[in-house]
Amino acid sequence: MASDLDETDAFRPRFDSDGLIPAIVTDAGDGTVLMFAYMNAEALRLTQETGIVHFWSRSRARLWKKGETSGETLKAVEILTDCDQDVLQVKATPQGRGAACHTGRRSCFYRRVENGALVFVDDARLFDPGDVY
Amino acid sequence: MASDLDETDAFRPRFDSDGLIPAIVTDAGDGTVLMFAYMNAEALRLTQETGIVHFWSRSRARLWKKGETSGETLKAVEILTDCDQDVLQVKATPQGRGAACHTGRRSCFYRRVENGALVFVDDARLFDPGDVY
Repeated sequence: MASDLDETDAFRPRFDSDGLIPAIVTDAGDGTVLMFAYMNAEALRLTQETGIVHFWSRSRARLWKKGETSGETLKAVEILTDCDQDVLQVKATPQGRGAACHTGRRSCFYRRVENGALVFVDDARLFDPGDVY
Repeated sequence: MASDLDETDAFRPRFDSDGLIPAIVTDAGDGTVLMFAYMNAEALRLTQETGIVHFWSRSRARLWKKGETSGETLKAVEILTDCDQDVLQVKATPQGRGAACHTGRRSCFYRRVENGALVFVDDARLFDPGDVY
């Protein structure tokens, strides 16, 4: 399982066959996982150059500046990569109202699995999606 | 972007065309992102039933009980899903020496991107991979 990607200081992100790399966004403040999406090379470059998190939207098949509609942009504080450089973690500071999720919640991960069903662990909305989209 | 998956309490994980769903593992203690891998339906079922995190290894094309070789198993404390139920977050308590990464480090995310290169933010190894694999 060892790879020469493990110990190098060369950044060689491994995009998949669709040209995408998964990106986990965590809150730079307390580490909460806020959202998960994919970047292509251009989204990664724009994130690095502008300091604002960009993704590739698979559903819309286009570059996606996170928060372009809602105003809920994410300021990239630090980008980490994993051992084999096929995943990114972006530590970010939420702008706007602090709702990374399109449902108006702080995080997309607001439900836990319990006995095969979902239980809401965070049902607070920082905006009403009906007003925003 | 709204979906009926957003507000339901029915757990309907959406596996991709390969039958996989991404899983972000965080430390149940302090929230640190430890690793990222994929589960198929069986790995998810085994994780829920045994309380030990299982994945599908894409490189080895087989079920993977995390830590089966190294002893670095992960005890699943809580499973969350995201708004559209195509990603999981598993809050876990590391067992063994507490090195989730095959390099012997606590987390796979031990390097940050800086000026196009990688800088080690954690170079402490809790085991020597040469002794373990």
